Amino acid sequence: MKAAKYIILVLILTCMFRAPRPVAAQGTSPMTPPSQLDLLPVPASVQMQAGRLPITGSFSVLVKNYADDRLRGGIARMLTQLAGRTVLAPTVVGALRGLETFLQLVQGDRNGYYLPGIRIQDQPRFPWRGLLIDVGRHYEPMEVLKRNLDAMAAVKLNVFHWHLTENQGFRVESKKLPKLHMLGSDGLFYTQDQVREIIAYARDRGIRVMPEFDIPGHSTSWLVGYPEIGSAPGPYKIERGAGIFEPALDPSRERTYKFLDTFLGEMAALFPDAYMHIGGDENEGKQWDRNPQIQAFMNAKGIKDNHALQAYFNQRVLKILQKHHKKMIGWEEILHPDLPKDAVIHSWRGPASLAEAAKKGYDGILSAGYYIDLIFPASQHYLADPIPQNSTLTTEEAKHILGGEATMWGEWVSPETIDSRIWPRTAAVAERLWSPRNVTDVDDMYRRLSVISRQLEELGLTHEKNYEMLLRRLAVSDDTAPLRTLASIVEPVKEYRRYQMRPQTMLSPLTGLVDAARPDSETARQFASNVDAFLSDAPRFALYRPDLEHTLAEWRTAGRALGPMIDRSPALQEARPLANNLSAIAAAGLEAMSYLAAGDTPTTEWRDAQLAKLDEAAKPKAALEFVVITSVRKLVIAAAELPQLRSTTPVEWKKRITTQAMPGDKLRGGP
Amino acid sequence: MKAAKYIILVLILTCMFRAPRPVAAQGTSPMTPPSQLDLLPVPASVQMQAGRLPITGSFSVLVKNYADDRLRGGIARMLTQLAGRTVLAPTVVGALRGLETFLQLVQGDRNGYYLPGIRIQDQPRFPWRGLLIDVGRHYEPMEVLKRNLDAMAAVKLNVFHWHLTENQGFRVESKKLPKLHMLGSDGLFYTQDQVREIIAYARDRGIRVMPEFDIPGHSTSWLVGYPEIGSAPGPYKIERGAGIFEPALDPSRERTYKFLDTFLGEMAALFPDAYMHIGGDENEGKQWDRNPQIQAFMNAKGIKDNHALQAYFNQRVLKILQKHHKKMIGWEEILHPDLPKDAVIHSWRGPASLAEAAKKGYDGILSAGYYIDLIFPASQHYLADPIPQNSTLTTEEAKHILGGEATMWGEWVSPETIDSRIWPRTAAVAERLWSPRNVTDVDDMYRRLSVISRQLEELGLTHEKNYEMLLRRLAVSDDTAPLRTLASIVEPVKEYRRYQMRPQTMLSPLTGLVDAARPDSETARQFASNVDAFLSDAPRFALYRPDLEHTLAEWRTAGRALGPMIDRSPALQEARPLANNLSAIAAAGLEAMSYLAAGDTPTTEWRDAQLAKLDEAAKPKAALEFVVITSVRKLVIAAAELPQLRSTTPVEWKKRITTQAMPGDKLRGGP
Repeated sequence: MKAAKYIILVLILTCMFRAPRPVAAQGTSPMTPPSQLDLLPVPASVQMQAGRLPITGSFSVLVKNYADDRLRGGIARMLTQLAGRTVLAPTVVGALRGLETFLQLVQGDRNGYYLPGIRIQDQPRFPWRGLLIDVGRHYEPMEVLKRNLDAMAAVKLNVFHWHLTENQGFRVESKKLPKLHMLGSDGLFYTQDQVREIIAYARDRGIRVMPEFDIPGHSTSWLVGYPEIGSAPGPYKIERGAGIFEPALDPSRERTYKFLDTFLGEMAALFPDAYMHIGGDENEGKQWDRNPQIQAFMNAKGIKDNHALQAYFNQRVLKILQKHHKKMIGWEEILHPDLPKDAVIHSWRGPASLAEAAKKGYDGILSAGYYIDLIFPASQHYLADPIPQNSTLTTEEAKHILGGEATMWGEWVSPETIDSRIWPRTAAVAERLWSPRNVTDVDDMYRRLSVISRQLEELGLTHEKNYEMLLRRLAVSDDTAPLRTLASIVEPVKEYRRYQMRPQTMLSPLTGLVDAARPDSETARQFASNVDAFLSDAPRFALYRPDLEHTLAEWRTAGRALGPMIDRSPALQEARPLANNLSAIAAAGLEAMSYLAAGDTPTTEWRDAQLAKLDEAAKPKAALEFVVITSVRKLVIAAAELPQLRSTTPVEWKKRITTQAMPGDKLRGGP
Repeated sequence: MKAAKYIILVLILTCMFRAPRPVAAQGTSPMTPPSQLDLLPVPASVQMQAGRLPITGSFSVLVKNYADDRLRGGIARMLTQLAGRTVLAPTVVGALRGLETFLQLVQGDRNGYYLPGIRIQDQPRFPWRGLLIDVGRHYEPMEVLKRNLDAMAAVKLNVFHWHLTENQGFRVESKKLPKLHMLGSDGLFYTQDQVREIIAYARDRGIRVMPEFDIPGHSTSWLVGYPEIGSAPGPYKIERGAGIFEPALDPSRERTYKFLDTFLGEMAALFPDAYMHIGGDENEGKQWDRNPQIQAFMNAKGIKDNHALQAYFNQRVLKILQKHHKKMIGWEEILHPDLPKDAVIHSWRGPASLAEAAKKGYDGILSAGYYIDLIFPASQHYLADPIPQNSTLTTEEAKHILGGEATMWGEWVSPETIDSRIWPRTAAVAERLWSPRNVTDVDDMYRRLSVISRQLEELGLTHEKNYEMLLRRLAVSDDTAPLRTLASIVEPVKEYRRYQMRPQTMLSPLTGLVDAARPDSETARQFASNVDAFLSDAPRFALYRPDLEHTLAEWRTAGRALGPMIDRSPALQEARPLANNLSAIAAAGLEAMSYLAAGDTPTTEWRDAQLAKLDEAAKPKAALEFVVITSVRKLVIAAAELPQLRSTTPVEWKKRITTQAMPGDKLRGGP
């Protein structure tokens, strides 16, 4: 890792504090406890100190012992975000990461903006903290990349993994092989000037840019212009579907390697990063199986299967990269006994394969667990660790684990929606890769995530503001209230089920309710927490009762109001069953609460009817699923089981309800 | 105007219609009345026809007799907005403007998307329909310009007037005189490549790009790098304040003209438009008065005053422009007996000066009445006409009136807020310049404006979505409800009062409540309309009563909730008096309504106390003013005047109330 341009920094931010203002000096000096700080990622060490530093109009930043254009740029950006409010501070601000920490430390109250008294010592746990953006399946304009680089810097990520080529698009200009981008991209590609602009923009923010050219599979778009390097005669067309496709480069012909030498050589000169990612994933070798010339080549060389053939290909590519002074990194499929030890393994299947590679002496990075395109909640990504607690790696072996990358695969994201798929959840991954391993408090992570989410918005990220925009477009109205209520408690279906339930092509609009809806529903999380508290308050059932009744009534109102809205909007037709489900969910919850409040026990018929309605509501529609079903089911079962409360403890009773509310069919009904 | 690249087009959009769907054929065929169409600007002629054309998955566009890259690009953009939904239509789509009309015609209901049966004949009333964006005072990034060009095309504007230089910034790269942009811009300028990119982007959308280089005043930023062409020795610094400043080019020295020849020649080659705007406004000549060398020059040449000196300067500049094959346009100050007739006059003071110029034989365009930076409502801009009803121009003279331009002066706009100052109000100006003079129904304009506003958002305009973002930042919370309620009924103070009330520099943050608040409050307009209807319903007082009570109660709730929110946010401290006013306004309105509902008459003391509170609330604070005061005042006065209702007609009674509610002090209390 010596050649990689990652930054390890030790930052000591010490401020001289002015005397507290009189109002704060009267024994009520506001001393912010560390647990209340909104830092993300959490630093390695934080000590609170007395006093506070007001940020007034005379703020300025003094840099001692160190100055370069990049740091000056970083300070200028920080001051812009601080919005002109400034403080005379005899401070050495050590580096860009520290500036981001500083920005997150700024607090405000009726006396103005201030910094808490604090001493922070910090360094990253892993040197490789990345975000992959797949611009192959859907092209993303320059400003999308730039604002995401801004966001990466804000949470201390330092590797932008630019997945530039896919079956569905070849997105980088090649001056030497121009049919690559001209025929393989629908005109949606980055010029070399634009690539340099992104690299400079990233560098200014302390971020490396590592390109990926995915070969030998995932290469349909290459073959549109150059079918002669494919394993079947062609002609080829840009792929419009989603999935795994057959086209693969021909590993048996010298012209393929000559072509790659030309292309990768050109890219090696364009991208200064020490690493080049060659993909290498998901090649099933079907074209190879059917090509007699390739089969003859394998026989002649004694290559026994497709995995070995790909290993041969990888070694040839490795030599090309070495010639151009690049280190090779590839998806874990490249792991093979013949793979040289200076290749880096990128794990997408799990930390076990990463550990296996580390034991063999390979450096590696983890993306399994960080597949943000699969719509899992931040909590799940947050607890995935490149070196899990039960790891059997020695200290030396563990050093091979360089870090990880969140992966934004591009099947179902447009420039309008991509931010909401990346943020704020990727901040949780960023914290996992930066902060000490024992920082694992999920509730506190979510608390800080919502603060950081707003700060990311200040940088221009659109994950919040495009939500309302998409809803307005669907509602054909400025009054989106009922649709927003529905959208707040549904999530897109997880993993790869969206495509199965609602097939689309890469040319389809990404403007449906499934595109507006977001992962990790905060409303559902809050509702679940309130229901749990309410049931724990047995037999009084007073805790959070007004909140819950208010929420359920809002769902009922929205369920009714959605009908006329859907009538007006062709794009919302698919949401009609969800609107009906919403009414049913609200009714079940409200009736259950009224039984509990009155101390009455409903009939078995009522219970069965409600659970049947909830089971129906739990089935995904329009590639969306309600994420409050388990909580409402708890209310229904609690009402039905009320008599049992008299013969058991509230704790036992609640446990019984919770068990029944979690059906064995793995329908995910709550976070 | 022969040389100007404006487009006059006659578009006939005729569709062959499929048989109506069975559901629509049962005598209930949906025939959209023209008044219900959401077109903006309104076409010259619309005839509704029977039937509707469903837009299904097989939609495509067939172009006959005409094809070029620009039209193909326009069709591709339209199809993207149509989001992949398509129809086989034996249609000739004649031009880009027609495509925009087509997009606005698409409607939807539960049976899907469709086009109404329609025949449209259309052409613009004026050939010059512009938007000025001042990037001098605040720089606007490329994407801001691009999205605004998209929006201009959507409402058929065809001139982007790029105000590139100001006292506060010189925003275009000069390769021949590089100190202009290097020392005059803080590094915030457009490279010549970027200028070409904007010109190409605009041209693809049928928009001319006319640059403005404002001279001899408004030129401080020029003089930072080249003080030798100034009228005082310097040194000069980039101006950070707002207002009119003294620096002016020296009209008495040949080196000034040599400099301008070099610079304008370079720009003439960069900008293909036939016109070049030389500004010429607001030069008070103070530097000239104090410069003995200039005074000596005037004596020698027999130039009697500064106006004549500027006329001399203009004629010299005109010759330079002619040499570089450009026509000159300037602000109306350039009008002078010696001004050649092929110069164009840009009026910012009013249509009278425009008419005067036309009578003298000058072409002219109007911006007076279209100063969108002054925060007046769309209705006001909408009714300003380049050729008013009472115009005394002959038909021949009227031909000199080429059109007009909305002007987005840049003192108080950032990339985050500029869209909300331009849109949707500029769409009303666009309609004035495109549609027949007799299209003046303000209510219908507002109805269509809200539809177009959402469509502009689809193009990437941020006027809607940044509103919530700015409120979230101020509230330091995702829950902005009470702040949104307050913001929905206040507007920034009008004209140039913002700077007087809340002085800032060009480096100050534009993130206050005054920046989040928007012109032309829709809530206030609706409230005013409901109050009028409610009072017309005397003595029953039932019409809109629940709506009004609901609204007033929401204000009361928000007034209470704002206190704790303001405590947490230093940036909201200035809003505290507004929060108190909000509570007072709500209480006055609710109490008045309860008197009216009960038929009780309040005491005179009550009336006086309420009116005093409303007078206090009507005073602007934080450069914001409530725009619902007049309506609430009407309610209070109506309650107090209830006895008079028995001795007069409801109409007379309401008139009496309205008169009393409009105070003579010109406090604008309602739209």
